[in-house]
Order: sequence, then structure tokens, then C-alpha cells
Amino acid sequence: MFRKEETLAMRNKLIGRSCRLFYSDDPVKIVKARGQYLYDENGKQYLDCISNVHHVGHCHPSVTQAATAQMELLNTNARFLHDNIVHYANRLAATLPEKLCVFYFVNSGSEANDLALRLAHEYTKNEDIIVLDHAYHGNLTSLIDISPYKFQKLNGQKEWVHVAPLPDTYRGLYREDHPDPAQAYADTVKDVIDQMHLKGGKVCAFFAESLPSVGGQILLPKGYSTKVAEYVHSAGGVFVADEVQTGFGRVGSHYWAFQLQGDDFCPDIVTMGKPMGNGHPLACLVTTAEIAEAFTGNGVEYFNTFGGNPVSCAIGLAVLDVIETEDLRGNAIRVGTYLMDLLKQLQTNHPIIGDVRGVGLFVGLELVTDKEQRTPATAAAAQVVRRLKDKFICVSTDGPWENVVKFKPPMCFSMEDAKLVVDRIDQILTDIDSGH
Amino acid sequence: MFRKEETLAMRNKLIGRSCRLFYSDDPVKIVKARGQYLYDENGKQYLDCISNVHHVGHCHPSVTQAATAQMELLNTNARFLHDNIVHYANRLAATLPEKLCVFYFVNSGSEANDLALRLAHEYTKNEDIIVLDHAYHGNLTSLIDISPYKFQKLNGQKEWVHVAPLPDTYRGLYREDHPDPAQAYADTVKDVIDQMHLKGGKVCAFFAESLPSVGGQILLPKGYSTKVAEYVHSAGGVFVADEVQTGFGRVGSHYWAFQLQGDDFCPDIVTMGKPMGNGHPLACLVTTAEIAEAFTGNGVEYFNTFGGNPVSCAIGLAVLDVIETEDLRGNAIRVGTYLMDLLKQLQTNHPIIGDVRGVGLFVGLELVTDKEQRTPATAAAAQVVRRLKDKFICVSTDGPWENVVKFKPPMCFSMEDAKLVVDRIDQILTDIDSGH
Repeated sequence: MFRKEETLAMRNKLIGRSCRLFYSDDPVKIVKARGQYLYDENGKQYLDCISNVHHVGHCHPSVTQAATAQMELLNTNARFLHDNIVHYANRLAATLPEKLCVFYFVNSGSEANDLALRLAHEYTKNEDIIVLDHAYHGNLTSLIDISPYKFQKLNGQKEWVHVAPLPDTYRGLYREDHPDPAQAYADTVKDVIDQMHLKGGKVCAFFAESLPSVGGQILLPKGYSTKVAEYVHSAGGVFVADEVQTGFGRVGSHYWAFQLQGDDFCPDIVTMGKPMGNGHPLACLVTTAEIAEAFTGNGVEYFNTFGGNPVSCAIGLAVLDVIETEDLRGNAIRVGTYLMDLLKQLQTNHPIIGDVRGVGLFVGLELVTDKEQRTPATAAAAQVVRRLKDKFICVSTDGPWENVVKFKPPMCFSMEDAKLVVDRIDQILTDIDSGH
Repeated sequence: MFRKEETLAMRNKLIGRSCRLFYSDDPVKIVKARGQYLYDENGKQYLDCISNVHHVGHCHPSVTQAATAQMELLNTNARFLHDNIVHYANRLAATLPEKLCVFYFVNSGSEANDLALRLAHEYTKNEDIIVLDHAYHGNLTSLIDISPYKFQKLNGQKEWVHVAPLPDTYRGLYREDHPDPAQAYADTVKDVIDQMHLKGGKVCAFFAESLPSVGGQILLPKGYSTKVAEYVHSAGGVFVADEVQTGFGRVGSHYWAFQLQGDDFCPDIVTMGKPMGNGHPLACLVTTAEIAEAFTGNGVEYFNTFGGNPVSCAIGLAVLDVIETEDLRGNAIRVGTYLMDLLKQLQTNHPIIGDVRGVGLFVGLELVTDKEQRTPATAAAAQVVRRLKDKFICVSTDGPWENVVKFKPPMCFSMEDAKLVVDRIDQILTDIDSGH
């Protein structure tokens, strides 16, 4: 093993600096993990509040076992028939509305979102894409183009990309005091479509995370997606729900975050990724038979070298099993609710806490310097992250002003973990309040 | 386990039909594999001549062991410091020219090639891309745009994409009787650049596989890349070598196929993928310090969720170890040479064999109906594939006319395997010759 300084020196030399480290001033070297705990090179334990990828807990033995057993047996590509891919697709289908029934397996959420664009184009033959402000949909060329979070800093906005306001009822255009924010925000998408039509454009897809994450752990007002889907459909487009961060029961009450919008809403394409393989590169797109048929109709093969291989699918199946056998959705409801209750209690003592929001184990704590103006407390949020690190707890921030402390821990996160992190935040905010 | 018909029925229902099966008339169900052998649901053994991904042999125990050990320990993202990623980058660097020293780890060759485009754009600030005819660089939106093999069937050629002739000395513009095909083909790239300049374009990158695969298992004439690089560099562009199919010692004499061009040639960006993780979704881009710096210079993070995680890197390291300890490069030279010798002997008896070419375990057998006109024997090539399948040997075809039978087997392919497949091809060609 290299000493930490050696690892850092080699990393700085050998790995592109665009690949950033957490805590870049004093990065952490992690050598072991289990459940919701990380361990550094000195054996020091960190509580992990942010690894949503390691959904059923770091290094879950059932997942490792399933991977090993399949790796010993077979790992070909999906041009050969194999049971795992169909068994896995079937299991996933059971969690989804009936009309979402055709699967494409890939290696990352980015690959899934890029494929969603290809399918939407092929089906609608239209060009224009509507996204939410501050959205991030992946690291590929095509996804930078539809991610305001990235393109605003890079190559700018393409003429076929249209940005609708983020339906943020705390900080956005229409807030908690609005009588019908769902309708009001949906109407902003209608406006975007109308503007597009005036310029001769035609909507290909409305593309949004079911819970905007980089945007600041945002909950879409209930009813929003149903109305948006109506507008988008009648303009000839499709609704793509990006569940890369939010799927697989993180919200507790449902398997998919889009289901929070109610039974009358069903996207046309859903993409999934991060938690799907508990760290293994595994992602997926599911769509309707009609859209899949349009894609097949172009007569060109879609081949993804590693997508849907027997090992990836065995891992995916093991993850589904653990979610069920350990009732991790139930845990997400119980612990997530407790975590939010504790944070809301904190709010009464700390005026810096502007908002506490979330669902299941997807929780945001928004810090503001001024409760009235809701001025983002960016520096304080960075302080909280840094000081929690000193107390061996990992969190990070999101939102356009990086003032939202986010929680999206492994789904085995416990009541004690929730209590611990909130107690520590209480101390830290008290210190910050008193100028320390 | 499902019966084969059930698997097929579920597959047809649940998996997008654009994801095609091998032998679509009567697909094969594979349940086990080891080394260069595949086993179907009845225990029948197939010799695998095409799985270049399973580079060191299917289900190599050293690779499985390394994966399991690391999966039990840790599999975080690369925002934490870890030894595996730097150790692995260091090992890869040792196989490359010194100036290729900054690594980006991703999950697929497609992701690597997309990133190559992003880096090239950021470094050169130019737009135009030159590719070889019939090239395929991946399944993403951005790569379909630069893959004549795909865009000719789909959305057509973008104005910033320029296609140079494939330097195929058997079937191309300049053939084996040309005094200097390397110079002549390089000059076609110069012409493309000149044409581009006339229209006000500026070259961003020349993008090519080091051995064009889909194009028909083509060997670039020696000296071609050096000359092309000169032209491209003096026009302000970079040279991207796509080694996704060809790297990791497949050519035997060298670790990377671009090195066949000689020591005076070094690409600016190299992408690698398929064989890198022996089936695990692992890929990579390596570039110069200058290009990496230009990419960092935009101030925007590049984050790839699974890229460079400790498990992927442990697997990558194990693959490198096996290549060395089992002398798989030596084996590629010995068996590849023997295979080509046998195929060349066949050529004297079977006029349908137009060309035998290759290097190491990257070999093509080009079938023609007419030796003079070199008319592609597409139907016969399909026959060879089908009849070899009946004899439990898997090969497939490539080339614009699908008349090139290709061999890119796991690197543990043996002398006996080579003898067996050539004997079977001899029988099949004899049957075809005699009208059976």
C-alpha cells in the first residue's frame, strides 16, 4: 500500500485533474467499506451519508456472492441467449407500470440517457428537447448539451435545447404560498412549447429527473408531471423520467420516484443507473413497445458490448433481492422520516435552516443567511461539510448555490446514524451561530 | 433455468429488438464458458474464435479472484483516494510512450471515444473530424455521427465530419501493387484537410482504429499513421487512436496496435476498452499532459460515477498480470502466425479465398467469388459462419460486404484450436466449391 501522500502525488500526476477529489484540500483515502461505513487507511470509521450508488450497503455479501458465482460461470455479451437478462428484465418490469416493458441494458446512467435521446428522436422525428433549469443528465457530449448545470459553464445552449424553470417551491418562481404550483410550473413548460412552435420547432422530449438532484434535492409538486406529460404528448413529444439517482426504492413508498406523482402518470421512457448494481457499472432504459418498435424500425443494430451481460444482470438481481429481503424501502421510510423530523426540530433553533425537504432517504437541508430573502448560505454549507468530515461524517452539497446539504445514504442507514449526524450538525450550527 | 424456447420468447418480448442475437435464425444459448470454450444448455462445447472481450480467456480464475477480493473490501467512486486507480494507471503507462501519461477511466469504449471528442474539442477549439470509411467508433449519439458504418444507414453525414478512404491494400484505392500505399493513403487525408480548409473548416481530430475492424480486419500500411499525424498536427488537429478492439497485446509483437507503425509514431489520445476488464465494463482514455491540461482548463469537473472504481481497477490489474504471466502476447504471435500459415495454405486450394491478412490474433479471411475482380463472396461467408456453427465453432464476418471471416479469439487460443477451425473451413469450402 502507498502512503496517502504517495497516492495523492501519483493521482495528481496520472489521473486527469478534471476528475476531482472530495475534500480537495485534504482528500480522504478510503480502503474498506461495509454497510453505511467507510474506513480510511488508519482504520478510522466514517459515516457515509452520500453514497447513493452503494444502495444496499457497501460490499453487501449477497451481491459479492452473486457476482462471484456468475463470474466463475459465464460473462459473455448479450448476443447469446442467457436467462439472467430476461429474468432481470422481468423482475424490473414487475416494479413498473405495464406499458413500460421493453428494456435496454447499458453500463452507466449517461449511456442510458444518451440512448433515451436516440429513441426519442427516432420515435418522434422531432429535434427539440426541454429540460429543467440546473439539470444534470450525464457526462457525454449529447448530455452536456441538455444539462444547464454543465452547458452554462461550457459550450452554451444549443438552439434545440429549451430550459423550463425548476419547479422549486422553496426558491423558485412559484412557492409554497402559491395556490397551485403544480399547474403554474406545468404551464411554464406549455409556454416553452408555445415559444418553440413560434420558431418552427417541434418537441422531441421533455427530459427531467423525477427528483431534481443537482438542482438542490427538489420535490416536484404533485400533479406537475401529469400535466407536463399532457402538454408534451399533445405537442408530439415524449416524457423521459431520469431515475438514475432516484430509483430502486430510495423514496421508500414507491419503487420509482416518478410514482410519487400518482397512478395517472406514466413516463414514456425511464432511465436508471447508479444504485442498480450497488457500484457495478450497470444501467438501463425501459420504454414502451411503440417507442422500441420505432427504434428497431430504423433497421440498425444497437450493440452495447458489456450491456446486459450475465454478471451485470446477476448483480442487478441480487440487489433487487436485498432490497426486498431487508425491507430497505421500509427502512427508507422509517429512517428518512425520522431524519427529516430531527432536522425540522433543528430548524426551530437555527434560523440558518431555511428548508428541510425530502422523501425517504433523499433529503435536503437548505441553508440561508436570511429567512425572508432566502439568501443562499453557501459558505456555511461548505463549513458544515468540512466540519462534519472532521467528525468523520461524509455529506456534500447541491443546488445552484451549493447551499443544500444533501443526504442520500446507503439504504441501510439507521436511526442511530440519523441521530448522530443531526446531533453533529446541531453542534456545528451552534458553533457557526456563535461565530466559531 | 428456462428452456431455450422460453428464454427466446422472453427475450423477444422484454429486450429491445435492436439488440440483435448471433445466429438470429437459431440463436445459441450459452450457460458456461472457460478459456476459449463456450458451453450451451446441453453441455455442448463451442470453440470461440470471436470473443475478443474475454481476452485472457473466459472466466479466468485470477480475474474472478481479484474481483471478489476487491468487492469484499471496497468499491467506492474515484472521488476518494485509492491505490488501485493510481497503481493501474502506472502499470498502463509503462506499456505506452512516455508522452501518453494522463488517464481517465470510464465504463465502455464508447464512453472513452466520446470523451476523446470532448478533449480534442477543448484542446484544439476546432470542429472538424476526419474518420476512415466504414469506421465504427461506438453506440453513442456523438459516435454515430463519426461512424460511417452507422451514419450512412441513419441520420446521414454531418457537415463537420469528413471521410477519408480506408487504407485497404487489398480492396481499396491503392493496392499491394502500389509502390507506396502508406504515402498515397496519407495523401488522401491531406486532400481531405485541404478541402476542409477551402470551406473554412479546421481539423479537430483524425480519429481511427489502429486496425480497422468493422472495415474488414484491415492493417494500415506501415508509415501511414506517421504521415497522417504530420498532416493533422500541422493543420492544428490531434490524432486519436481507437484501440478499443486492438489493444492489450492482441497483435502480439506490441502492446498496442498503433505501435506497429514504428517508434516515430505516437497518437495524442488513445482509447481502450473491450479486452481491458475481460468482460467487466472497464475502459479508458490516455492522453498527453498538454491535452489533459486544456480539458482541466475549462474549470468544469468530469465525473464518471463508476469510472476507475477499485473493483474495476483490480480487475484491470489482474488482466495485465495474466497477459504477462501466461505470455499471451507470445502465444498470440505463435498461434496467430500458425493460423495465418494454415489459412494461406488453404488459399492455394480454394480460389474463393481472396486474401488472408492479420497480425497476432487479429486475423481476416476475405472471400471473393472472382479473384481478379475481387467480388465479395458475401453469401459464401455467411455459409461459412453457419456451417462452422453446426460444427460447434463460433466465427463472424466483417467488412463493408460482410465477406471477411474474422478471428479475434481469447488470447489463450491454441495451435490445436487453429488447426481445428482451419480443417473445418477446408471441408466447408470444399463442400461449397462442389455445390453442396
